[in-house]
Amino acid sequence: MKRGFGSDNHSGISPEIITAIEKANNEHALAYGDDEITARLEQLYRDTFGLQARPYLVFNGTGANVLSIDAMCRSHEAVICAETAHINVDECGAPQRIVGCRLLTVDTPDGKLTPALVKTRLHGFGFEHHSQPKAISISQPTELGTLYTIGEIKALADLAHEHGMYLHMDGARLANAAVALGCSFKEMTTDTGVDALSFGGTKNGLLMGESCVLLNPVLDVDIKYRRKQMTQLGSKMRFMAAQMEAYLTTSLWQRNAEHSNRMARLLAEKVKTVEGVRIVYRVQANSVFAQLPSDVWHALQKEYFFYDWDESQDIVRWMCSFDTTEQDIDDFVATLKSLMGA
Amino acid sequence: MKRGFGSDNHSGISPEIITAIEKANNEHALAYGDDEITARLEQLYRDTFGLQARPYLVFNGTGANVLSIDAMCRSHEAVICAETAHINVDECGAPQRIVGCRLLTVDTPDGKLTPALVKTRLHGFGFEHHSQPKAISISQPTELGTLYTIGEIKALADLAHEHGMYLHMDGARLANAAVALGCSFKEMTTDTGVDALSFGGTKNGLLMGESCVLLNPVLDVDIKYRRKQMTQLGSKMRFMAAQMEAYLTTSLWQRNAEHSNRMARLLAEKVKTVEGVRIVYRVQANSVFAQLPSDVWHALQKEYFFYDWDESQDIVRWMCSFDTTEQDIDDFVATLKSLMGA
Amino acid sequence: MKRGFGSDNHSGISPEIITAIEKANNEHALAYGDDEITARLEQLYRDTFGLQARPYLVFNGTGANVLSIDAMCRSHEAVICAETAHINVDECGAPQRIVGCRLLTVDTPDGKLTPALVKTRLHGFGFEHHSQPKAISISQPTELGTLYTIGEIKALADLAHEHGMYLHMDGARLANAAVALGCSFKEMTTDTGVDALSFGGTKNGLLMGESCVLLNPVLDVDIKYRRKQMTQLGSKMRFMAAQMEAYLTTSLWQRNAEHSNRMARLLAEKVKTVEGVRIVYRVQANSVFAQLPSDVWHALQKEYFFYDWDESQDIVRWMCSFDTTEQDIDDFVATLKSLMGA
Amino acid sequence: MKRGFGSDNHSGISPEIITAIEKANNEHALAYGDDEITARLEQLYRDTFGLQARPYLVFNGTGANVLSIDAMCRSHEAVICAETAHINVDECGAPQRIVGCRLLTVDTPDGKLTPALVKTRLHGFGFEHHSQPKAISISQPTELGTLYTIGEIKALADLAHEHGMYLHMDGARLANAAVALGCSFKEMTTDTGVDALSFGGTKNGLLMGESCVLLNPVLDVDIKYRRKQMTQLGSKMRFMAAQMEAYLTTSLWQRNAEHSNRMARLLAEKVKTVEGVRIVYRVQANSVFAQLPSDVWHALQKEYFFYDWDESQDIVRWMCSFDTTEQDIDDFVATLKSLMGA
Repeated sequence: MKRGFGSDNHSGISPEIITAIEKANNEHALAYGDDEITARLEQLYRDTFGLQARPYLVFNGTGANVLSIDAMCRSHEAVICAETAHINVDECGAPQRIVGCRLLTVDTPDGKLTPALVKTRLHGFGFEHHSQPKAISISQPTELGTLYTIGEIKALADLAHEHGMYLHMDGARLANAAVALGCSFKEMTTDTGVDALSFGGTKNGLLMGESCVLLNPVLDVDIKYRRKQMTQLGSKMRFMAAQMEAYLTTSLWQRNAEHSNRMARLLAEKVKTVEGVRIVYRVQANSVFAQLPSDVWHALQKEYFFYDWDESQDIVRWMCSFDTTEQDIDDFVATLKSLMGA
Repeated sequence: MKRGFGSDNHSGISPEIITAIEKANNEHALAYGDDEITARLEQLYRDTFGLQARPYLVFNGTGANVLSIDAMCRSHEAVICAETAHINVDECGAPQRIVGCRLLTVDTPDGKLTPALVKTRLHGFGFEHHSQPKAISISQPTELGTLYTIGEIKALADLAHEHGMYLHMDGARLANAAVALGCSFKEMTTDTGVDALSFGGTKNGLLMGESCVLLNPVLDVDIKYRRKQMTQLGSKMRFMAAQMEAYLTTSLWQRNAEHSNRMARLLAEKVKTVEGVRIVYRVQANSVFAQLPSDVWHALQKEYFFYDWDESQDIVRWMCSFDTTEQDIDDFVATLKSLMGA
Repeated sequence: MKRGFGSDNHSGISPEIITAIEKANNEHALAYGDDEITARLEQLYRDTFGLQARPYLVFNGTGANVLSIDAMCRSHEAVICAETAHINVDECGAPQRIVGCRLLTVDTPDGKLTPALVKTRLHGFGFEHHSQPKAISISQPTELGTLYTIGEIKALADLAHEHGMYLHMDGARLANAAVALGCSFKEMTTDTGVDALSFGGTKNGLLMGESCVLLNPVLDVDIKYRRKQMTQLGSKMRFMAAQMEAYLTTSLWQRNAEHSNRMARLLAEKVKTVEGVRIVYRVQANSVFAQLPSDVWHALQKEYFFYDWDESQDIVRWMCSFDTTEQDIDDFVATLKSLMGA
Repeated sequence: MKRGFGSDNHSGISPEIITAIEKANNEHALAYGDDEITARLEQLYRDTFGLQARPYLVFNGTGANVLSIDAMCRSHEAVICAETAHINVDECGAPQRIVGCRLLTVDTPDGKLTPALVKTRLHGFGFEHHSQPKAISISQPTELGTLYTIGEIKALADLAHEHGMYLHMDGARLANAAVALGCSFKEMTTDTGVDALSFGGTKNGLLMGESCVLLNPVLDVDIKYRRKQMTQLGSKMRFMAAQMEAYLTTSLWQRNAEHSNRMARLLAEKVKTVEGVRIVYRVQANSVFAQLPSDVWHALQKEYFFYDWDESQDIVRWMCSFDTTEQDIDDFVATLKSLMGA
């Protein structure tokens, strides 16, 4: 398939990861996470996120998000999130089916919740007819490629905790946020008061590596059973752990994320020079959202696979990957220009 | 970890599989199964199981089983299975939580259902207070290492169909059954009337490769949404498809399964020579169940990891893998003998 | 408790209903709806709603709504409804927990969906990451006391059917709508294309009488099992059926609904004369929504129980019942006036 | 319908209960249990079961049982019960769908669990592949009409508590047990260590009156929301509370239960004189289970409605009600005799 800007999961696997899998393929190991590599990885998570971190490896981002929600909420409770949140839009109702809870959504200008926006949903406490707000969920970076600052995350965590609630962060692309903000994972999560984190690497060069990380130990109750029951316990877990171990110990996460972020900035800069195309959101991570004439993006889709994001407004999404090249961008922008000119 | 007989998922990955992953790591590909390798694999499933086969790749055996049950039953319906079935004992209640249905269990002498045993559960049709039997689920080979003959499967399928029900086969180790019976996958499944199949390769040399295969097309309704909603849709699916493709096209499934079956037979033969140890079930696939003095198997567990199967009866399980060697068996039996003698 | 305007379920039972219960208390009858009164009631529903109507008596409105949704949608599907809908706001997430589906909500000016509003949610068909829209749900009258015209209902039904979807009507107060529009139940439901109806009488003089009525026979699949499984099957059903039979055969539903509607209009007229109090929505059924100074409605709540509807905007709800008297209204308005004057 | 022995919910309502409903039909009252009668009833429950009792009125026995299970168990946990338990056999899988947990069933000779029988299910603690046993559920009287002694209940409670588990009692017919044992409700429940109780009166003369009573206060967490979410919150609750209040304060529960128990003993005595009919279980409450020739019970069913209990063994169930008369019994036994003679 032609290299393009469809998604950061269209790219393959970084070579370091293949090597890690091969190295882990060594004799026998206990299954279901009782192996030595998973034990090392758990220590590595504690080194990375703080001593209280409790990681649970899972298969995909939906699994990480649903397990996080399951740790925070019972079915009569609710999660406040942006209307655009992955848990709301892109998981085919997994939280509803598996946890049975409600999501209370808020319209946002840029995918980011604020305390003021969240407060519009903070009512009905104690009223048995209403689902009880129990968690706030944010994505970092958001589904629109924007970022929360450390202070903004902290403000949401404080608001949650004042109401006896938890803060969840969907960090499917957390590396992209960390390198963009120039901070550590811990500064963005544990130190701001995040209680549960979905931390993934699949979109940043891994074959498969996702996890639910409970940063608030009060949430770590019977989660191992619930991971198993929701079909998210892997047998040959060492091969997932080995990927994540390589990801965190070789600076691969930084290198890949810095590259894809840089490519997104470059793409945005070049696109801005094309008359009639508007960049819609701040380009802070590895995605670019653009508004352009309907016939142009439809024609462009014949050359390149990418998602329309809001067809009614002619907004499309272009994602950069760890392996995107400047040549890829030049070719793409050239095609775009030619279509705009036609 | 010392090589032993704990489980066939303690062994690693066959070299052919690593190669297939590396080969699939080639530029960009669409995610979520819209790639070329998954398309080829779907055709390969149709070649293998018949034109009507509809495969859905998933992450693990629990996912394959729950998706199969979800395709066959609604929450007010029930699945008849052996008390020892994996779906009943070893999935921490996943079918109950995710599908919401009942499992109607039957005690069996050897893990195998028979029409007579199933009939004890075939009542209450039309009575709204009772969950309605809608499927029969068997494991091939069973969790006790025994096998259904082609005729036995057909008899259960016929019984199911006479009652407007479906037959599901849990084939997490289907390759071991096929080589033991000397038949093709299709002869054991489609041709006998199996409606839904969980078909896996993880226990036979893959890193990860499981699937729900709908052999009866009437079951193939909206399953793609339900796979996604139950958290079983993988993003970089090409790497799972590539494994299964290599598994099915290189005769790897036969070679690995023949080897582990042969090792189990060898282990059983050698164990039989040890006085005081009894082989409990027929050794037809790659597992050996043995009954031996309590202090002996406890002592043996200090040297080797394996599961006690029924502590109250001193029955333990020993599994052989694609990489089990004769030397492994000799060492193990020597240790066993020495402990029996002590 | 002081008679007030808190809710139409604060009033008691119409005498005709007590009489019907006493009359039904006659010797033995089969349980679970296999009795003669329930059989007569089922015929009465067919006379009322058309030959194809399939009624299922349940305990409460939440039960009727959830059973209706369960008949229309599977867990990966979604119901489009107003943000203010009872199923969305006031059932503590029952649809999510029991059906496992999503509700796709739309902001409305007056509690009413329109085809244009619904269309903002009609996308993502066939995309497995998105819950699939499968039903539209409207309340008649709405939770804000407004009414759909026959034509408006028909337009929504047509839109639903064009997309292979169903139209559900929450008719917890359907009698109030029917007398206000001057039409029959059938003209408002079956004839407009409503597929599933929650039809209740508890808020209009019954002790307990709610039902899920499937007007589109394709929905009537295994519903009796699902009613039982979701805990909504009553044993001594004859006493529920007898109430609904009396309700429908004695013109009680008209008399009670006409009275409570008339009282609401009277209340609204008198309230309008009080300076500083604004009627917020059209008064079409038996509720009045008013906006008034915060200190006044708080003081008024010390005398009378009623719900604030939107605290942030100082909007409160006053409901009239079948037994509200003009004196009740005069007393209430006098108190209100006196508080406004203070 | 001819008065018979089909079920104790085939009889109607005791006059005292109709009177109580009429008396409660007095002006307005808050809905959803915030009324004065429900407040009085809650005090009455505390007087009856002890100060720590927390009652939740619900609509039916299934609701009471599922809410009790929901208070005790999360989805990855399991309830140990008799194979014949109502929660296992007669609720169409409601616990599985609504709580998502497993039921671990035990075959019993007479419907009664014993510590020895329960212990066969007490394993797998801590093993994430297995649902974790968290509650024992017994029915008092059992579904087979047998009774636990105070000591037997206590032994099961002790066993549960030793394992960090809870004891639930399904007391749909608890009055029949209390009068048979000559003890108070408290002696049978709170004093023995029962943690959660389903307490009902519908089968003993009420129109509708069931409740989940949490006797162990640690279980009383957020139950009001969960009752609402599982569709079991009634609006005009005063009319349910008034029934239960009359039931408990007028000795109606004793009178009705003593009568139906006595009628069952009488029926059993007379049936014993019929050659060829065998009483299968001890007649301790208000049911009689008999074994008789297949053609006879089929013929008898043409005259009288009753359930076959185990068709394969020709066992049928006959229930007595609060309004069963000696004449009813004489007529029934005469018919039976005549059929046996033919």
